[in-house]
Amino acid sequence: MGMPILAPRDIDFVLYELLEVESLSAYPRFGDHSRETFDAALKTARQIAEDLFATHNRKADLEEPRWVDGRVQLIPEVKQALAEYARAGFFAAHQDYAVGGMQLPWAVTQACMCWFYAANIATTAYAFLTVAAANLLQTFASEEQKARYLQPMLQGRFFGTMAMSEPNAGSSLGDVRTAAEPLGDGRYRLSGGKMWISGATHELSGNIVNLVLARIKGAPPGVKGLSLFIVPRYRVAADGSIGADNNVVVSGLNHKMGYRGTVNTVLNLGERGDCIGEIIGEPNQGLAYMFHMMNEARIVIGLSSAMLGYAGFRYSLDYARNRPQGRSPENKDPAAPQVPIVQHADVRRMLLAQKSYVESALALGLHAAMLVDRQKNDPDPVVREESGLLLEFLTPIIKAWSSDWSLAANSYAIQILGGYGYTRDYPVEQYWRDNRLNPIHEGTNGIQAIDLLGRKVAMQKGRALALFLREARASAAGAARFDALREYARALGEALDRLERTTAFLVGASARVGAARALANASPYLDLVGHTVAAWMWLRQALVASDKLPGAVGDDVGFYKGKLQACRYFYRWELPKTLALASLLSDLDATCFDMQDGWF
Amino acid sequence: MGMPILAPRDIDFVLYELLEVESLSAYPRFGDHSRETFDAALKTARQIAEDLFATHNRKADLEEPRWVDGRVQLIPEVKQALAEYARAGFFAAHQDYAVGGMQLPWAVTQACMCWFYAANIATTAYAFLTVAAANLLQTFASEEQKARYLQPMLQGRFFGTMAMSEPNAGSSLGDVRTAAEPLGDGRYRLSGGKMWISGATHELSGNIVNLVLARIKGAPPGVKGLSLFIVPRYRVAADGSIGADNNVVVSGLNHKMGYRGTVNTVLNLGERGDCIGEIIGEPNQGLAYMFHMMNEARIVIGLSSAMLGYAGFRYSLDYARNRPQGRSPENKDPAAPQVPIVQHADVRRMLLAQKSYVESALALGLHAAMLVDRQKNDPDPVVREESGLLLEFLTPIIKAWSSDWSLAANSYAIQILGGYGYTRDYPVEQYWRDNRLNPIHEGTNGIQAIDLLGRKVAMQKGRALALFLREARASAAGAARFDALREYARALGEALDRLERTTAFLVGASARVGAARALANASPYLDLVGHTVAAWMWLRQALVASDKLPGAVGDDVGFYKGKLQACRYFYRWELPKTLALASLLSDLDATCFDMQDGWF
Repeated sequence: MGMPILAPRDIDFVLYELLEVESLSAYPRFGDHSRETFDAALKTARQIAEDLFATHNRKADLEEPRWVDGRVQLIPEVKQALAEYARAGFFAAHQDYAVGGMQLPWAVTQACMCWFYAANIATTAYAFLTVAAANLLQTFASEEQKARYLQPMLQGRFFGTMAMSEPNAGSSLGDVRTAAEPLGDGRYRLSGGKMWISGATHELSGNIVNLVLARIKGAPPGVKGLSLFIVPRYRVAADGSIGADNNVVVSGLNHKMGYRGTVNTVLNLGERGDCIGEIIGEPNQGLAYMFHMMNEARIVIGLSSAMLGYAGFRYSLDYARNRPQGRSPENKDPAAPQVPIVQHADVRRMLLAQKSYVESALALGLHAAMLVDRQKNDPDPVVREESGLLLEFLTPIIKAWSSDWSLAANSYAIQILGGYGYTRDYPVEQYWRDNRLNPIHEGTNGIQAIDLLGRKVAMQKGRALALFLREARASAAGAARFDALREYARALGEALDRLERTTAFLVGASARVGAARALANASPYLDLVGHTVAAWMWLRQALVASDKLPGAVGDDVGFYKGKLQACRYFYRWELPKTLALASLLSDLDATCFDMQDGWF
Repeated sequence: MGMPILAPRDIDFVLYELLEVESLSAYPRFGDHSRETFDAALKTARQIAEDLFATHNRKADLEEPRWVDGRVQLIPEVKQALAEYARAGFFAAHQDYAVGGMQLPWAVTQACMCWFYAANIATTAYAFLTVAAANLLQTFASEEQKARYLQPMLQGRFFGTMAMSEPNAGSSLGDVRTAAEPLGDGRYRLSGGKMWISGATHELSGNIVNLVLARIKGAPPGVKGLSLFIVPRYRVAADGSIGADNNVVVSGLNHKMGYRGTVNTVLNLGERGDCIGEIIGEPNQGLAYMFHMMNEARIVIGLSSAMLGYAGFRYSLDYARNRPQGRSPENKDPAAPQVPIVQHADVRRMLLAQKSYVESALALGLHAAMLVDRQKNDPDPVVREESGLLLEFLTPIIKAWSSDWSLAANSYAIQILGGYGYTRDYPVEQYWRDNRLNPIHEGTNGIQAIDLLGRKVAMQKGRALALFLREARASAAGAARFDALREYARALGEALDRLERTTAFLVGASARVGAARALANASPYLDLVGHTVAAWMWLRQALVASDKLPGAVGDDVGFYKGKLQACRYFYRWELPKTLALASLLSDLDATCFDMQDGWF
């Protein structure tokens, strides 16, 4: 394949034309930045991603982490890639100048990360887990903890993990049993087992900073008794020097279907000797701290699933342009040359479906990242608050909708390649396997749906949803000035009305018939909201394309026409799916609720 | 897992209650048979499948076929399993007594095969490929060829393959280039390359009978110039003795994402020395012969994908009943014990979705197998003809709809197991990988859609579709006698009307705007027909359940209630999807047709 792993035009379109990310330079924090500095960061990301990450994506899948002489062994390319990633400053790209960061907006940082997500998700995971843990420490750790743990993480010298799940506490974090016994000096002795912990053992960094959810002895049951601890692989002295092994024992590796390059572990804390943790912030606030990080982590999941979908889309597009097979249904001459399969409408259908899913997921993810920037940096407290609320509403959609539909996109990519796509000689089957993790981790998509319907749309008397409706209706109103978009503007308006009515009905029903019954259909509700949000993203993209098309030259003409056609695809083929969903939800259908175990 | 790989109750329900397969005993061919003989065959299938096939399903995935000293090496369990399969007579189960068969109906044979499909699809493939090739020889080969090739295949001493595809001729078989040069004595010298040939090298049998599609020198281009040849691995003398190597050279193995236990090869014919083939039947009739076999092969694909879906469903059901996690949304006591996840409505949703897909696909596949029995054996020529027409209509649905939705079922099974489902310690990820082949091979699902819309619904002035509509409307009329089914009977009636209108419109449009435009949306048309056919299958199952429920005792009460609830699920959650599809098709939506390569 001669084509790049990602078309820079697609990222540029979202950043500069759709989101107008340069406007962030008006914030004092980003005052030094401009399109030039953003482009420079993107160029560096592209170069490292193409040269050092994409090049071992398949090898890391074929040679998964394994035990050799009591240590986990990864292929050497992983360390080389992450060292270069660190050298270029990506571990601290969005952090303060004062701590060695570049003070890049989170939206631009995530746009850079898109190169890495598309190139090699498994190697990139070591980096984004570290960044997520660092963000949490930045917000909640003491200055002294930051000096010892955060600073080396920002330099890529220490890596980080999030250690929440246990064998008996996955979706139900309130059931975490890992115990923390106070030692009287602010330190705690940890004991218990953790499960599904990614990146908790390797030789990629000088230390591993595990952020561990545990219960201080005597704390209340449930989520209200969970505290968060820094539990390093090796203890760190006050002067930052690395000391003894801290007895974070890896009792096993999990062997996954995909995402194989990311080592995933079963941990035992404290069985072999003292495993010492330092509490972060206040006791019993652990889950709140974790959730602070989870929102950003969920944007990362959404964007990285979008980029896996995107990588499959681009690969299958290139294949479709170069694979001759068959002829037009109207060409009855068997001696005529075969045509490239992109000339078959059904192949274009599978390409358009992919494009419509992954490009809206990409736009949505970067939009959310920009909301993070606004929430933290806008001088106007109303903008800050509203950005935060919108983000709360959109987060479960970004995580769940993007991962579900990007996975569907990956399956289309395989189908376009046919038998070839089913072999390990082509990358599309790996994208599909890798991407299958995304609907599961960082809160299953079922949990996201309950978060959306059970919490987000009702919070602050529905303000988050109202804000989204306001924004999306404004987009619809703006689109009506283009004749060609009026059909979509009207359809979006109707979909928003439908969403508003359905939500009001379900929130009301919850009070009337109980939360269990009302939440039984949370998943189709998330599907309904997700497709409506994606339709909004497509109308916004079509608006930009309609504005720019008359003045476009060269490749841009086709580019904007493609955006308009993908918008058309989404409105004709996808958005109508919400009709059946709304009907089901408005009936408060109880089929699943009523089903009995004994009837299966 | 203590549970069997397949619930015998499910097979019995379809065979004896839904299809009333015992009625086939009225045909002279099956006169010796009864429920007792059918049950005996099913019991034997179960025993061998459980003891010898299921036991190495994962091992065959982990240790895929590889070259050792110039031969392909499979794990020894494959040979042991197939030897027992042969010993029990399954290679000839449906064949005449005269050739050593059991004269079992095809429907019962396929019900037996369901045990093997569910237990280990990759090992079973060696058997079903052989049976498919044997069926073709039975119909079209000369008596002399049957004596030398077919007879050993029925005993499981020779295995068979179908060698159609080439690197440049997959979906477009008219472009097959393998050449056959007449040697003047009825034999031909073959030369060329074949691709994706399953089972073309192994040491499981004394010989491998490859059925090869090739073009006799001077034959017309396209599909009308293809002939079919018997091309054995080792030549077979007139007395049946095995002679020299026939130069069917394996030039490579394909390394697949799933279905790994079935060796898949790149073949070169005649490069190293003479590769001799014997023509089957008449020259230039090869594709017609192949298609005879393809209909049965496509039923096998549909049923085997259904059973992969089914195996995942049953596994995830067992897991959901035994995995404690979380509490009811209305239980706020964090100290209360966790409940099995089957108690969460969203988990029951994912189980019901699986049940609704795989049990209708199973019923549909066995229904089709019974149509094969009727087509071949009914004394009434009208029944024979109508059974054949219905089968023609249903075949693309069975192949494509079953494989698409059983794959969706497998994804739900993974989701229910969460992180565990994503690991190779549990079988559900393998089912998903194995099943991903089914929308691709034996004619991609896109090809099935074109077959359905471009050929099947228009054939004989729409008689096949009319027959289906007649049958399905009769089911709807029959269901109206149960109050509880009236809602579904009405919905099915409306769906059938919609299907009839949409089809008439599309067939008419083809004449008006050209086949290319009308066929551009063949895939959503297949989705529309598929969901309508599945709704029919569910109503029929619900009818039986409604009849039986009042007199049911013990486990049957829950069993029938489950059938009724799955029917409700399908009518409330699935069938309404056809509304949006019909709307799209009736607009002759040209989004995909109009899309230009340069706009991507």
